[in-house]
Amino acid sequence: MKISTLSIGDELICGEVVDTNASHIAGKLYDLGARVRRHLTVGDREDAIVLALEELSIDSDAVIVTGGLGPTPDDLTAAAAAQAAGRELELSQEALAHLASFAERLPGGLHPANRRQALVPAGSELIPNPVGTACGFILKLGSARLFFLPGVPSEMERMLEETVLPALAAPGREARLRVVLKLFGVSEAAVAATLEGCLPEGSPVELAYCVKFPEIHLILRSLARHEQSLQAAAAAVRERLAEFVFAEGEQTMDRALAALLKGSGLTLALAESCTGGMIAARITAEPGSSGYFLEGNVTYSNEAKTRMLQVPAELIASRGAVSAEVASAMASGARRAAGSDLALSVTGIAGPDGGTPEKPVGTVFVALADADGCRVNGYHFLGDRAAVRSITCFTALDWLRKHLLTLGAKD
Amino acid sequence: MKISTLSIGDELICGEVVDTNASHIAGKLYDLGARVRRHLTVGDREDAIVLALEELSIDSDAVIVTGGLGPTPDDLTAAAAAQAAGRELELSQEALAHLASFAERLPGGLHPANRRQALVPAGSELIPNPVGTACGFILKLGSARLFFLPGVPSEMERMLEETVLPALAAPGREARLRVVLKLFGVSEAAVAATLEGCLPEGSPVELAYCVKFPEIHLILRSLARHEQSLQAAAAAVRERLAEFVFAEGEQTMDRALAALLKGSGLTLALAESCTGGMIAARITAEPGSSGYFLEGNVTYSNEAKTRMLQVPAELIASRGAVSAEVASAMASGARRAAGSDLALSVTGIAGPDGGTPEKPVGTVFVALADADGCRVNGYHFLGDRAAVRSITCFTALDWLRKHLLTLGAKD
Repeated sequence: MKISTLSIGDELICGEVVDTNASHIAGKLYDLGARVRRHLTVGDREDAIVLALEELSIDSDAVIVTGGLGPTPDDLTAAAAAQAAGRELELSQEALAHLASFAERLPGGLHPANRRQALVPAGSELIPNPVGTACGFILKLGSARLFFLPGVPSEMERMLEETVLPALAAPGREARLRVVLKLFGVSEAAVAATLEGCLPEGSPVELAYCVKFPEIHLILRSLARHEQSLQAAAAAVRERLAEFVFAEGEQTMDRALAALLKGSGLTLALAESCTGGMIAARITAEPGSSGYFLEGNVTYSNEAKTRMLQVPAELIASRGAVSAEVASAMASGARRAAGSDLALSVTGIAGPDGGTPEKPVGTVFVALADADGCRVNGYHFLGDRAAVRSITCFTALDWLRKHLLTLGAKD
Repeated sequence: MKISTLSIGDELICGEVVDTNASHIAGKLYDLGARVRRHLTVGDREDAIVLALEELSIDSDAVIVTGGLGPTPDDLTAAAAAQAAGRELELSQEALAHLASFAERLPGGLHPANRRQALVPAGSELIPNPVGTACGFILKLGSARLFFLPGVPSEMERMLEETVLPALAAPGREARLRVVLKLFGVSEAAVAATLEGCLPEGSPVELAYCVKFPEIHLILRSLARHEQSLQAAAAAVRERLAEFVFAEGEQTMDRALAALLKGSGLTLALAESCTGGMIAARITAEPGSSGYFLEGNVTYSNEAKTRMLQVPAELIASRGAVSAEVASAMASGARRAAGSDLALSVTGIAGPDGGTPEKPVGTVFVALADADGCRVNGYHFLGDRAAVRSITCFTALDWLRKHLLTLGAKD
């Protein structure tokens, strides 16, 4: 089955928004065994949309269209779809009823402008939207089935999952498989060198690299019939890069860590300086984190380090707030104050100011305290403020993850 | 001038990577006065690339192509470009020299595979790459000029800026202007209703909506010659929506708030429960935040609320941790403990668990304490855990922003 996608919006064509929908849909279709043939983006111009629909429907069995279904005058997708299919726009009673059911949930109720959203091409089939005002619709154009979805990602994703993907899942289609290994702490070139000759000549497995700073994703793809080759290749890659793989597939660092923390039965406290709450925000992003996370101390001022974490003022004066000694004292202090089993601390110079010849921007110390004491590591990270904060955060989380794995192995 | 863009890569077509290049290029072209006509994405298949190049060159004066110029066997862009133009691939001495100059900067030196990157279609003109191994090139196809750039964003962006944009800046071209108003606390439909009839009939100003949850961006665009109309339209929109506009253009909530905090000379402390450090992370994302931000308390456990913020345990027991009273006590406690001028606190039920009939998921209280006392607001937000946390965070920041503006107005 040939599937194409079309994104509609001046905000895309003028560079004001990054199109995440195209990527999301492509990923979901790939898993279904259908690779996107081509993706097209056009602006909010009725003639451009009509032309794009006509072109894509010539050589696609299905086209998934996102955007332009909102309540404002620049939302022209329904009108363009009607024109391309030689139909009239008509007021859908079903869509109106849907809008009415949303009225009570919207602040200020439903606005008359929302009524526009109930206009769909005559003869089209509605796609329910459980989380927003815009219904989608399905329309035939030549031999292609066109699926129209709103551009708001959360709405689009639900409707894709619940209506579009089931409609496209042909019984005879061979699924495609994918193994995604997520790495941290190693460069792309080093990964490539390590993997040289790892896949046998003529392997049906595709290997792709994808840098998502500070992570590197290694992607292995194959048709379902080559699953054995795929698993063998994945095993070979895992063996060579084991120490850097922190997660696979849909798993993330945050979720992997959440599962380990939950499984360990241990409690955690945090003390953050240069990451300023980023680590706590990631830990608490996971549902159920209140089961193991007690508290975070964002001790930005030196006075806060002393009062909240009992870091001696003399230690800060003699070693500096960014030092192995202060990182240690922060972790131990956080653990003691919270009465937690574990405590993780971070202090560093994220920049752009505050660097010195001895401690340049990017100097970071991370400490981990538990019942056995406190260990500390020092780093010199490259990059701007956001990069230093982000890699510091990831480094701390990865250390905690490895520590919990070691504990698990000892049990 | 008609300009199209083409992104090449299986990682795009398989949904593993979000295409940020298309958006970046579109934004730069818009500022130059050239709007992207259409954007196309295809995978790493030589025939698909050839077809895309042929199609786009028929009705474009220029096509900017990214991706597929790397050293690996799935990099097929140069071969496809040669085929589309009916040329041979030839080894460019200039590109080879460039590669050689990079050898010493690469860890482990230049890999033999990199030599592939010196193969370009005969008769093409090289585009220098100051930051990577892959040279770009320019090729005529029919009446279109095709610009080929690597897909690595940092390399692509430099080459676009230094070679492609200057080549496309026609002396007669009229620049385009853009005003971006960023709104919070109002629905898209309400904005559209408020602005009805705001632009005069036949106005040369385009008005576009762009939802970036929880923000709504209102974008006004025009040709440079209509600057007066654009500014008048922007002024009219500002007047109607003043209470919701928190930033304009490149300004963000975080930067706007940072400027206000810096200008106020006041210090800030935070106490976060359901946002778990997100507010602190945003405050400290700005350089110089140590000048006004003293500390953040991520008091996830009730015990932490009592010990760190002196919230009476009886109050938590009688009113619940998620209550106006506890939010107030958290803000007052944080202000007292830190000795700050201002303190902002947040407590809420982000879900998915923890909701009750009286306090469903999405129930949130935000409190703001200063020398005059403490005020608290209650909310019922819709959405999943991430959405509730994100809108809570934004609501708290926006309140602080408005409070600082009021103080500024009093001065």
